[in-house]
Amino acid sequence: MSLLPVEAALERLLQLAEQAPIRELELLPLAAADGRVLATELVAGLDLPPWPNSAMDGYALNLADWTGEPLPVSQRILAGQAPAPLRAGSCARIFTGAPLPAGADTVEMQENVELLTDGRVRFNEPLRAGQNVRPQGQETRMGEVVLPAGTRLGPVQLGLAASLGCALLPLRRRPRVAVLSTGDELVEPGQALGAGQIFNSNRSLLCAWLQRLGCEVLDAGILADDPQRTREALAGLGQADLILSTGGVSVGEADCLGQVLREEGELALWKLAIKPGKPLTCGHYRGVPVLGLPGNPASTLVTFGLLARPYLLRRLGVADVAPLSVEVPAGFAWPRAGQRREYLRARLENGRAELYPNQSSGVLRSAAWADGLVEVLEGRTYAPGDALRFIPLSELLA
Amino acid sequence: MSLLPVEAALERLLQLAEQAPIRELELLPLAAADGRVLATELVAGLDLPPWPNSAMDGYALNLADWTGEPLPVSQRILAGQAPAPLRAGSCARIFTGAPLPAGADTVEMQENVELLTDGRVRFNEPLRAGQNVRPQGQETRMGEVVLPAGTRLGPVQLGLAASLGCALLPLRRRPRVAVLSTGDELVEPGQALGAGQIFNSNRSLLCAWLQRLGCEVLDAGILADDPQRTREALAGLGQADLILSTGGVSVGEADCLGQVLREEGELALWKLAIKPGKPLTCGHYRGVPVLGLPGNPASTLVTFGLLARPYLLRRLGVADVAPLSVEVPAGFAWPRAGQRREYLRARLENGRAELYPNQSSGVLRSAAWADGLVEVLEGRTYAPGDALRFIPLSELLA
Repeated sequence: MSLLPVEAALERLLQLAEQAPIRELELLPLAAADGRVLATELVAGLDLPPWPNSAMDGYALNLADWTGEPLPVSQRILAGQAPAPLRAGSCARIFTGAPLPAGADTVEMQENVELLTDGRVRFNEPLRAGQNVRPQGQETRMGEVVLPAGTRLGPVQLGLAASLGCALLPLRRRPRVAVLSTGDELVEPGQALGAGQIFNSNRSLLCAWLQRLGCEVLDAGILADDPQRTREALAGLGQADLILSTGGVSVGEADCLGQVLREEGELALWKLAIKPGKPLTCGHYRGVPVLGLPGNPASTLVTFGLLARPYLLRRLGVADVAPLSVEVPAGFAWPRAGQRREYLRARLENGRAELYPNQSSGVLRSAAWADGLVEVLEGRTYAPGDALRFIPLSELLA
Repeated sequence: MSLLPVEAALERLLQLAEQAPIRELELLPLAAADGRVLATELVAGLDLPPWPNSAMDGYALNLADWTGEPLPVSQRILAGQAPAPLRAGSCARIFTGAPLPAGADTVEMQENVELLTDGRVRFNEPLRAGQNVRPQGQETRMGEVVLPAGTRLGPVQLGLAASLGCALLPLRRRPRVAVLSTGDELVEPGQALGAGQIFNSNRSLLCAWLQRLGCEVLDAGILADDPQRTREALAGLGQADLILSTGGVSVGEADCLGQVLREEGELALWKLAIKPGKPLTCGHYRGVPVLGLPGNPASTLVTFGLLARPYLLRRLGVADVAPLSVEVPAGFAWPRAGQRREYLRARLENGRAELYPNQSSGVLRSAAWADGLVEVLEGRTYAPGDALRFIPLSELLA
């Protein structure tokens, strides 16, 4: 059976996302908007800077007025003040960020002038018209689109919106994501571990991650491998925008969740050319999209980061859903070409990607150690020094 | 006057941070720990996996038992079940993640066996002892330090802690950071802009950023350039761990905040070899550390990200406070060597760092556009293709 390449799977998922956009808006203050997605474009309602202003503490003058003789100081302008027009034949004491008085076009920094005992100012260096002046609208013109619709907001974008005077921003509402873990072997941390049981790590991983992505998490807990109880648990999820499960949804014999989801929906099993993380299910249940990630923690991490995260962002209208990546030289040899694309947990050491020794998908220790994922292409071998794509974990977790 | 190199400033700040550690602990559930700092090391209280288990859906056997003849199936083991010891001369049906029965040492995947009509299983491929078995403790041994004290926690670390059964984590308490903006020119977004006034962008930038860093923000608002009102505003900040101001704290004439802070404390003005962001003040007020960042938004961004952020993390005991960086080739020429190290807002395009055309420090538009900061060293010129250090913004904002 041929495996689905990662790009093809991502393309399909993004198409599905575009068919199920989350369009509702809410208007929220800047302080509540970190991590959220801007619903409409942000247009500058003013020029930035709003008026020409001084880039230095110094003296403002009209260069055409200046004959080389010292000039008297006719006013003193602090940031936040509205200056009078510059009196002809004079200069103005001015501070950084203060508006230039009408008529002035040049600022000399205070270090380059001499204050005479009669209060006049001698300019000792050659002057150039416009020097140390930040012109009105230099950075942004009124009417310009400063952030397009679909921009993911972080501290920088919030600061930029603030600089334009926006106190409230129109945001796409939070996606409601129901997180299900499946498997009779799972126990929540803090509880007693029985024979054959392990602690559920994916719920903590995904709940924190989804919150960073601006999602509202509907925590459906651990589903027992029991059809009736699974049906009951799913019944409450009609308001979800996505049912995100880990583990259990496969074609295997012990796939209770998959059976129940299929009763009132449809699930396709994709076999991806990705390692860790080969099996992924995709479908819908009572009209709610379903994504089923593999249950091994490192597989959950890789498939959520590379597939589910861009899917969710695209549903919110984010255009650029690819994480930033860079090329780095391999610090290791990879002598055996594989059939699947591998995302190895790696650190950068002296600029080279070094691998965590144990790349098993079973625990997250490799990822907690790593700076990012290096991408080893299917069908390729690598020698030390060969270029690899490196994706910082901070990009995926943002 | 010689400028203080960035490394020297950072070293001084980290020393100051180590002299003022924030040591108090609080015990919080995993769901409340994202972005926080682990106060004690996290030690594995169990082996991971806790018992040898199957990496595949298939059949478990004792290889020494196997003569090449088909084997009867003596039990069926799902994940979450506690198996009986393997009956000699038999195999066990087993599913991914299920514990190996005592006596079994090998798993063959189901795709490689043949089910006979009498219920026995014929193994068609050569078998290797231990294949498809994840040994007990392969990833983590009980007693191992899995995360050192001072680890910054994100979704991955929380998932890892969950896998070890930890429901509560001992965290350093949140640092209380008082954010002050200074300048009569500043107006909060949403309010009317008077003549000579601009909107305050740094407050939104810093409050969102500090929250990501796990800080409690004491928002002291915009201080007027008035000594008495400034004294009143500062009087309430005795509980802060840090007073973080932007703008205004300088040696200039119009430095009301600096004057008032000095009345009951000490402030040193550092002139840093950094662009944007040359002036930085550092000191204390009534025993509370004070950092004064320059007020131009891009300067605030660079100095907070490269200096204040590591300072705060070090006060929480984080050892590795340097953001991840990578070497990338310049996509631009930099023909004039400068006296200060420049942090230019850049995007990676085809792997090369391309600059935002306007690198003015006045607004955040360049940073909202950028993928990261490229570091142009003092006293150096660059040709296209020369290697530069690139710091992804996601690393600084994490």
